[in-house]
This record gives sequence, C-alpha cells and structure tokens, in this order.
Amino acid sequence: MEKEKVKQILDKVKADNRHLLTELETKEICMAYDIPVPTQKVAKTPEEAIEFAREIGYPVVLKIHSPDITHKTDAGGVKVSLKSETEVKSAFDEIMTNAKKYDPKADILGVLVQSMAPEAREVIIGGATDPTFGKTIMFGLGGVFVEQFKDVTFRLAPVSKSEALEMMQEIKGYPILKGVRGEPSIDFDAIASIAEKASQLVMDFPEITELDLNPIFAFEKGATAVDARAILTTDELKEFYRPPPEEIIRQMNRIFHPKSVAVIGASSKPGKIGYSVVKNMTDGGYKGKIYPVHPKEEEILGYKCYKNIKEVPDKVDVAVFCIPAKFVPGVIAEIGEAGVQGGILIPSGFAEVGKQDLQDEAVRVARKYGVRLMGPNIYGYYYTPEDLCATFCTPYTERGVVALSSQSGGVGMAIIGFSRSKKMGVSAIVGLGNKCDLDEDDLIYFFGQDPNTQIFAMHVEDLKDGRSFFEAAKKVSKEKPLLVLKAGRTELGARAATSHTGAMAGVDPIYEAVFKQCGVIRAYALNDLLEFARALQMLPIPKGENVLIVTGAGGSGVLLSDACVDNDLKLMTLDPDLDEAFREFIPPFGATGNPVDITGGQPPETYKSTIELALNDPRVHSIILGYWHTIITPPMAFARVVGEAVEEARAKGINKPVVASLVGDVEVEEACKYLEERDIPAYPYTTETPVAVLGAVYKWARAAGKIGE
Amino acid sequence: MEKEKVKQILDKVKADNRHLLTELETKEICMAYDIPVPTQKVAKTPEEAIEFAREIGYPVVLKIHSPDITHKTDAGGVKVSLKSETEVKSAFDEIMTNAKKYDPKADILGVLVQSMAPEAREVIIGGATDPTFGKTIMFGLGGVFVEQFKDVTFRLAPVSKSEALEMMQEIKGYPILKGVRGEPSIDFDAIASIAEKASQLVMDFPEITELDLNPIFAFEKGATAVDARAILTTDELKEFYRPPPEEIIRQMNRIFHPKSVAVIGASSKPGKIGYSVVKNMTDGGYKGKIYPVHPKEEEILGYKCYKNIKEVPDKVDVAVFCIPAKFVPGVIAEIGEAGVQGGILIPSGFAEVGKQDLQDEAVRVARKYGVRLMGPNIYGYYYTPEDLCATFCTPYTERGVVALSSQSGGVGMAIIGFSRSKKMGVSAIVGLGNKCDLDEDDLIYFFGQDPNTQIFAMHVEDLKDGRSFFEAAKKVSKEKPLLVLKAGRTELGARAATSHTGAMAGVDPIYEAVFKQCGVIRAYALNDLLEFARALQMLPIPKGENVLIVTGAGGSGVLLSDACVDNDLKLMTLDPDLDEAFREFIPPFGATGNPVDITGGQPPETYKSTIELALNDPRVHSIILGYWHTIITPPMAFARVVGEAVEEARAKGINKPVVASLVGDVEVEEACKYLEERDIPAYPYTTETPVAVLGAVYKWARAAGKIGE
Repeated sequence: MEKEKVKQILDKVKADNRHLLTELETKEICMAYDIPVPTQKVAKTPEEAIEFAREIGYPVVLKIHSPDITHKTDAGGVKVSLKSETEVKSAFDEIMTNAKKYDPKADILGVLVQSMAPEAREVIIGGATDPTFGKTIMFGLGGVFVEQFKDVTFRLAPVSKSEALEMMQEIKGYPILKGVRGEPSIDFDAIASIAEKASQLVMDFPEITELDLNPIFAFEKGATAVDARAILTTDELKEFYRPPPEEIIRQMNRIFHPKSVAVIGASSKPGKIGYSVVKNMTDGGYKGKIYPVHPKEEEILGYKCYKNIKEVPDKVDVAVFCIPAKFVPGVIAEIGEAGVQGGILIPSGFAEVGKQDLQDEAVRVARKYGVRLMGPNIYGYYYTPEDLCATFCTPYTERGVVALSSQSGGVGMAIIGFSRSKKMGVSAIVGLGNKCDLDEDDLIYFFGQDPNTQIFAMHVEDLKDGRSFFEAAKKVSKEKPLLVLKAGRTELGARAATSHTGAMAGVDPIYEAVFKQCGVIRAYALNDLLEFARALQMLPIPKGENVLIVTGAGGSGVLLSDACVDNDLKLMTLDPDLDEAFREFIPPFGATGNPVDITGGQPPETYKSTIELALNDPRVHSIILGYWHTIITPPMAFARVVGEAVEEARAKGINKPVVASLVGDVEVEEACKYLEERDIPAYPYTTETPVAVLGAVYKWARAAGKIGE
Repeated sequence: MEKEKVKQILDKVKADNRHLLTELETKEICMAYDIPVPTQKVAKTPEEAIEFAREIGYPVVLKIHSPDITHKTDAGGVKVSLKSETEVKSAFDEIMTNAKKYDPKADILGVLVQSMAPEAREVIIGGATDPTFGKTIMFGLGGVFVEQFKDVTFRLAPVSKSEALEMMQEIKGYPILKGVRGEPSIDFDAIASIAEKASQLVMDFPEITELDLNPIFAFEKGATAVDARAILTTDELKEFYRPPPEEIIRQMNRIFHPKSVAVIGASSKPGKIGYSVVKNMTDGGYKGKIYPVHPKEEEILGYKCYKNIKEVPDKVDVAVFCIPAKFVPGVIAEIGEAGVQGGILIPSGFAEVGKQDLQDEAVRVARKYGVRLMGPNIYGYYYTPEDLCATFCTPYTERGVVALSSQSGGVGMAIIGFSRSKKMGVSAIVGLGNKCDLDEDDLIYFFGQDPNTQIFAMHVEDLKDGRSFFEAAKKVSKEKPLLVLKAGRTELGARAATSHTGAMAGVDPIYEAVFKQCGVIRAYALNDLLEFARALQMLPIPKGENVLIVTGAGGSGVLLSDACVDNDLKLMTLDPDLDEAFREFIPPFGATGNPVDITGGQPPETYKSTIELALNDPRVHSIILGYWHTIITPPMAFARVVGEAVEEARAKGINKPVVASLVGDVEVEEACKYLEERDIPAYPYTTETPVAVLGAVYKWARAAGKIGE
C-alpha cells in the first residue's frame, strides 16, 4: 500500500476544491492499495489514443476524462468494444464533440483509454460513511440487479478477508457467483481481497466519504474494478466521548448502587414530579439515604429538605433532577462541585423541542465535573437489587434477572405494565430519552458485569455512537443475551423518530448488519422484545440444534413446523431407534417422525412418556410441546405431567429448553401459568410465540458460540 | 388457433408412448397457438443444415433433435452464434458425434437449425398443473435469476391479457423489464399475449401437464420463445362433486337450521362422545328436537332413545355420528333412506389413519342418497343463532357475527378458548377434519348468504378442490371478509400436514397467488387469524386510504409508523390547515405532521380535542391511537374520552375505523376492555396488533372494491 501516493492525489483534489475524484484519480488510489483496475492512459489526441490502444491491446474502451463530467454515459462520453484504429479515432472525435456539447464549460483533460475486460459476473463493493457507525463496507451483486433486488450486505469497516468471504455467502445471489449451469465459481478470494483493501483505504483516509467500485468484473481467476468513483468530504467525523470500559463500569456502579440519592426539585405537593420521585423511592423500599433538595421546603415525606446540594452533609452518589430544563446546566455544576457523579435528568425541554444548545451546555458542564448524565426527557430508572425506584411513574419491585432500557417514556411504561402483568422479574428498567450522555453501550458494559442481570433488552430509536455500541455488544453478547427493538425500521417510522427525542434513525440495513455482526438478537415488534426477554430468563442454553415437536394435535404440529422454519429452527430427523421408541407410546395411526403426533385421544400418561423420552434422549436438544385440550387430558393434567417430567429431568441434571403451545378452552390459561412458574414458557391460543422465543434463544446461543458447549 | 394441428402432434406423441415432447414439437404447438418462436428446420445432413442456415439467415443455432435427449446442453448438443457455412458444418458434425457418444441408443432425428434471436431481456412463462387448483400460469424473470431470486408470480389459468399484464407488474424485476439506465421497455403486450395463449393452450389440452417457455426473449417490439418444452400426462384430472351454489346453499341451510337432530350412537354414559353431544346440545339450549339413537338404550338425558333412525317418527334434518368408523358407511345408507341429508361424522379412523377406502365408501353411499357429510375426524359444529352445539367439546353460546372453521380439532379448541377468553361472539364454529365432502367452498356459499354471519375465518391445511374455493371466495369476498390461515406454509409444515388429517399441503406460492386473486385475507399466524376476525367485526369499512396516528407517546408513534409500513397502510400527509388545526391543541414542541404527537404531559382534554378533530375531518379515514400512561391522563380517563368522542361521532353518522395501542402500567388492560366494549379494538403492550388488524380491514376493503364507496 502506497499511502503517500493516495495522500498526494487527495491533496491535489482538495487543492482544486473538488469533492468528486475523476475516474482516473479513483483508479490511481485503488492501484495504490493493490486493487486491480484495467490498464488505462489519458490521451489528449486521437493519435495518442491510437498509440495507447496499441500498447494496451484491443479491444479498448474510451471514456471522457473531465473533473466536471460525472455522468459520462449521459454525456455520450463512453465508447466500448473498440477493435481497430479507425474505431478508436472516430470514437475519440465523437466523445470530444459530445462532451463539449454536453457541457461547454467543462474542463476536458482528454480521453481515458482502457483495456476492455472480458465479460464476467458483476459485483459491487462500496464504502460509505454512516453518521452513527462511521465507515461501512457494502457487498452485492452488480449490474441492474443490485438496484432492483437490493441484494446487498453490510459490515462495519475494516473487514478482514474472512469477513468479506462471509459477506459474499450472505447475499441471495451467492449461487450465481459460485456458478450455476456448469459455470465455474468466481475467484472469491480475489473479491475478498478487494473488499479488505477497500475497507483499509477508507479507514486510512476518513475523508473518503464514499468509495464505489461498481462494477467489479469477477473472473474465474482474479477480478477487476472496471469503474470506480470516490467522494471526499471536508466534514470532520464526530468525536465521541469514550471512557475506557473499566471507567464506565466504575461510573455505572456508583449510579446503580448509590448509597445516597438527592432529589433536586423535590416537592411536598402530590402530583408534582418532585413529589412522585421521593414517594416512589420510599415506597419502593430504597435502603440508602434520600436527600430532598428544594430552596423553600423544610421537610418532604418525613425527610429533612436541603436548600441546595452543598448543604447535604454527606457524600451523594446520584442526583435526580425534577426542575425545569433551563435550570439544569447550573445545577449540574453545583452537584459536580459537591462530588456527585450521576445526574438523572427527568426534565424534558431539550433537544426534543429543538433546544439542542441547552442540552449541549448541560453535557459540557457535566464533562467538566466528571458527571455522567442519564436522559434528559426520561421517566427515571429502576434497579431492583437496591430497591431503587428513582422515577415519577410507579414503584416496581419484582426482582429478576432481566434489565430493560427504553429511549421512549411510553415504551418504558409498556415495559412496566407488561412486566407486572406477566409477573416478569427485572433487575433494572432504565429511561434513556435523548441520550445526551449515557447510552446503551454504557449500560451494556454495566449489565455485562452485573451479577444481578442475565439478559438486557433495549428499545432503541437511534444509536448516538454506533461504534461504541458495536464494541460493547460484541464483547458482552458472548456471555449474556442482548436484545434490541430498533424503532424507525421503515422510512416512515424513521421520519416519526426524527421528530421524537431528537433522534436520527439510521439506515436500517446497516443496523441489521451491525446487530448480526455483534451478536445482538433483534426483535421486530415491541411485544416480541418483551416476550423474548421474559422467555430467555426461563430457558437454558440448548446443547445442540436438534429440535423436537411433541404434539397431541396434528394441526398444531403443522403450524408449529411452519413456525420452526420461520424462526430458523431445525426439526431433527429421528434415528430409527428413537422413532421406534416413540412409537411404543403412541397409537399405530399416530404420525411418524418429527412432529411426534401422539394423537388427540390420549391420556396424560402418553404425554408424560413421550416427553420423558424426549428429555432423556441426548440426541434431542430442545422440545416444543403442542397440547390439545381434550376430556381425557384436561389442561391442568397436561401441565402437571409436563412439570413433573421436566423437574425430574432437571433433578438428574438434564436441563433442555422446553416451550409449550396450548390450544384449548380457557382452562389452558391457568395451565400456562402453572408451566411458567416452572420455567417452561407456555402460551395459549398461539402456535407462533413459543417457537419464536425458542428461536431467540438459538439465535443468541449460535452468535455467542454456546451451542454444544 | 389451430387446435387440430395441436391434437395431431399430441396424438403422435401419445402413439409413440412418450411423455416429453421434442423441442420441435413443442414449438409447433406454440406456433399453432400463435406463440412466436424462432424460425427452425430439421436438417439430417450437414449440407441440409447449411442450406437451411442460408434460408433462415445467419447467425444460427444448431441443436440436437432427438426424443431421447432431454438435456441437450449436457449432451454437447447445442451450438450457438454460428456465422458461416464452415461453422455450421463443423457444428453439425460435432453435435452428431457428441450425441452418439452421450446416448448410443438415442433415436436421433437430425439437427434443429434455428434463427438466432438477438440478445434481449429474458422472461419465463410456465403452465403447470396443480393437484388442487388445476391449470396455473407462472410468470417471472428468466435466466439464472428466476432460479436464484424466485421472482415469479402465479395465476389460475386461463389468464386474460390484462391479468397477464398485472402479473408482470407484480414481480420485483418489473423495473428491469420496463427499462433501467435508459433501456427501452420490453413489449409487455407481446408477452401478455403469449401468457394468454399459453394459458389457453393448457386449458384446451388438459393432458399438457407442464408447458415451459424458457427463456422467452423480450424485445422492444415483440418477443420470441427461444426454448420450449412440454410434458404430457395420461392421468385423468380429478373430477370434483360440484353442485350449483343454490343447491349447496339449500343443503347447508338444512344442516345449519335443523328442526331436528338425531345423535347416532348416543350414550347415557358420561365420558362417551355420544353422551357429550346430547348433553352439549341440551346445555347449549337447542330448541329443535333431539333424537338419540342407540340399539339398546331406552332413554338418554331425558330424551326417548330409538333403536335406529327408521324408528324416529319425524323428519330428521341432521344426524350426528358418534359410532366407530367401520359402521359409518352402513348407517349413512340408513339415514339416507330415512331422508336425512346432513351427516356429521365425528369419528376418526378414516383417511387420517390410512383408511382412505373406508372414507371413499362413506362418500359413495352418501352421494347415492344425496347426503352431505361434514368430517370425518371432527369435533362437530356450533351454530349460535340456533343455539346448536353439536359437538363433544363444551357449549359455546356467545352470539356474534364471526363464523370460523378449522380443519384440525386442536385449532378448533383454540378458537373456542380464544373466543371465550376475549368474549368474541360467533355465529358458527365448524370442524372440517378430513373434508371427505363438505369443504370451505360449501361454507363460503352458506355464510355468504347467512344474515347472522359477517366474517368467515378459516384454518386450512389443504384445499381439496381449489377451483371451487376460488370461485366461491371470489364471489363472496366482495361482500364479506374471508380470512384464511393456511397451515403447511413451509416445506416442513407441509410435511407435517401430510401426516395429519390426510392432507396434501400444496405449493405455497400458488396458494398465496390464489388467495390474492380471489380477495381472501391471509393471516400467517393462528393468533393473527383470531385477532383479525375479532377486530373485523368491530370495525367499519374505511372511506379511503388516509390513516392518521394520534399519540401521546412519540416512541409509540415511531413504532406505529413502522407497523403501518409493514401492513401496507398509508400515513396521510396533512394539509396545512389541518396541521394548523391540530397545532391549536398541542404544545409548541409537539411534532408536526403525522403522527400527531400531542406529547406526554397532556390532560384527557387534549386527547379528546385531537381525536374529535380527526373524527370530524372528512380527509381522515382511519385513526390509530397511541396512548401513553401518565398521571395526568390515567388509562381509564383516556378510554372514557375516546369512547365519548367516538360515540358522539357515530351519533352524527361518522363511523371511522379507530384502533388503539395502550402502553402503560397494568391499568391499561381495563381501559382496553372498556374500549372494546365500544367496538374500538384496543391492545396493551403492543404497537403492532392494532395496526395489523386495521391492515386486515384495508386488505379486504381494497380487494372488495369497497374503499371510498
């Protein structure tokens, strides 16, 4: 790689005050990074063109060479398949005439004479700069198909050769590249190498905001970037505040395990936010010290009230703000001086209403004093291991291992309602709002090492610093499932997001790729996020990919099978001995194979025997139960035998994921509750949810490399 | 069209005992139906080949011509782009040598000399015979892309030219055909004409089980089927029993409005199916006569019991069978002789356990006596307008306008449980099981004219007679929403279906196309089917496509917008005056446009004013509400203002679909119930379901041409 060469070219472009590199310049920087391009030379006269064509070898391509003409084809500036001197000469003349007609003011530097690559399969490699994630690399099929079928995939740059090879396998058109109808495979290695080098190029020169190698001709041996363009930007890439993970964890521990909390703007008037916060912290059972701060009040809910934070005769860890936005920066300075390092900014009235300046000011002051800020524009936060309900909503005290965060207050309330309704224990519920400072990555590092948290589910409208999220998630997802609901998935949704909490929702395919790349499980619906989180805390990690359906309702078996396909689950093929073993328990007309259809008229014992067999056979890794309400096996009878079988297996050290779909009359609801009390996720009137939650477990376990561990 | 010509060719192929037509034969039948193919002639010697090439004009293509060589390219039997006599001669010799080597026993008839069509965009038109739907037509992009991207669409044959034009617009590659990058459009008319003629050809000659025009070269003017193949079958197409709709309706009315019901195999022993049926009919409140039939019992649950049906001193409309499978055909003859025309076959033990013969026998006997059969292998049926619970399950008596059917008993129980739990009134719940006779089409005709039914939702594993379903659904869906959950969507699911109720689950893309073609709304999940049915009964038909979101939670607004895109709903653009009108009610920092974000701190009045505005403005056609639980507007306060506003509007004759998503603490569940009692579908902890059900209304209304009526 000749970095110096690239630098010279870019310097020249910058000196010319241009943003767009010419094709020649782009190819020169490609060459400097060993990205193969066709042989090329600039001819200023027809005679030179003929001479160069002879040197390069026929056939050749002629293209107009001008910094002012971007759309060369539109300008009549491209002639291909030129096979003789006569053709080259007339092409040269024609291109010049066309170009002058197309843009009389254009600075025409000559005509590019290029070797013409033989026809080949076309691919595209692009490097774009995303405001959230920085440099990204795209790979896809070239030609009109990349546009029509959007058959492309993304990665954060830089990409290694092996990552680039993975990308190629991800697109739908992969078989075309591998060769169909007897065609040979393209040289994947050559393409991967181009992707790697292109990604290195954009990393080394951040000012290259876009690099487009399109098309690249992919041959059986080798590959050539036939056309290329690059765009420079003068914008500085945004710098993010990124303390080292250890420092983040230290800061977060102080915020989540505070020995004392001050409530700035506490109030004795019910209905006021400053009242609700003190009340909820009290009712929630917080054992630390609570210090209400208000200039005029003497006592609030039995606590002595202080005029300002400096008067508090104690080291305060966290200050919860319940004051109007305009006073916030000033008070951040006060708490900073008093040594408080966590500021919970409940107030709205910042970026979400256009007051970006006020928000920036708050952050500026906080940085000065080393204060980390949560919010603004939030409901507050809960951390049940400390009985901490620092929020104006309602106390939530059911302890559990799921942490949840939301960017929107409304979604936060849905989390609380759902958790309460479905009796889901949580470790934390955190409002992130405008995310002026604390972001998902901070929480990921904290929950990653928090022994009270096993799963972290996030509602995200945008990521402020996608790179940090990526790095934190990639690390932590190896140990704990991270779930995300990315709102603003669609263009309309993203538009709604921009007018909410000041968020800029990014390009969804990049989010999709990044979540995959860092092992984050994506939910596409609010209810899925909540159900996945709830089920993941109940389910163990499967030992392998073999999923078995045991059902009393053939019809459920069909729907459960459909759902398995939808959720990337593998219905195992039963070995003959195992099939035979199941047959012993089921009527002769029960269906063979998987699903194991025990048929509808069976007593609880048949469910029990088959489920036990499935639990005890090591070839079965996960079990989906499809119950059908009958007189012979009423819902609670089913629930009891399942509970027994699973608990007996657990006592023997066998712990497999078991999920259940119960179809039947309303009594199935009670049976579902019974099963869930025994950590068997069970759902009435649906054949999809149980399979979807099992699918989520598998997605995480695969990404974390846990399957078969 | 020269039908006679086609007949001659097919007769010859049949006489040869062949199934596969040669390329030449296939193209000859194409020509007979005016489907353009390249000029072609069969040469037996190199000299003839040269002569024909001269006649046809260079360049030419040479292909081996043999009924025994199907894979011509594999056999080295195709040479293209031949431009001279020398090339033609050597190609001829090479092809002959290759072919003899490839299959020494092949009957080689010569070499096909064809004009070589200029390069063009490739499409494919295929005609296949589906066991359920009969003749279908496929259209797609040709080349390797049809295989990789599966960018194809289907219709039942015959297709008109305008339907064929519609098909072309449905594929993802449509823009490629229309012309990208300055390319001209292909000649859609010429392609549509080929599709129309191909569909006519396979309709006229049902023995052509497959016709493949692949590729067709599509030019700016005209099109040519460059390659073509056809396969004949000797199988007879299955004939279905299809009484005229009026007759079906007459039969169904007798089954659903019986004045008297006999229970064959009634029993006085609790736990027996024959006992449960009599008990449920009694407990359900059936007002007609109940006649238990049993050879030995005297009295059952207070009813006089008869030895056999002939002893019953009354005209009986329906006989419910609760006897072992093997006795069923004999008793069908008895009830037929006694004038009963409806047989409800609860017993299992027929095709689903491999006893197809016994089932066929039952049908044969039934046909003889004009008896229609429901089942076998079912739970029975419910029809609430007659308080009829002819089932061994439990009585269900909540009257409503939704009819549901299921092929699986398990799914039927889920329907009952869901309906009871969610208080959904139904008109009918019908078990169809093996569908030896009565099928969804019979029910569609009946519910189509049934004043007690407004919506019909079906769980389907397979359709026995897809054509009849199509015709019935196409007609009835214009007036009443038809919903379908097609189980066995995926290959795995379909495999499970084949081992259940003896169903053969068809090829899903064809089902997908057919449902669309006949205006049936498809649900992809059991819970969706049930929720759609429940919501559709509450919602009026929208007057137009303008959907407005009013939300107190910006975060919900984003998720609701995403869901609108997922469900093909159009978020209206607000005219400035309307936008202005909303602004009067909301704080200055509330978001502009759609979603209308009233922001979180607002009192109930703000919800009320904005909702009233949306209800009263005729430009708004449907409303999605996104509620956020706050202290200022608790859930029930929201529910009450919404209920009031909607009811006031209804009193003024304004009836728009209104759906609601409620995010908040558990009190939102009570608020949802309150709203649903007022026919406003409302869901807690989800932003997807309310939008999905509104989407279902739109899908139906669009297909039925009801929007804007």
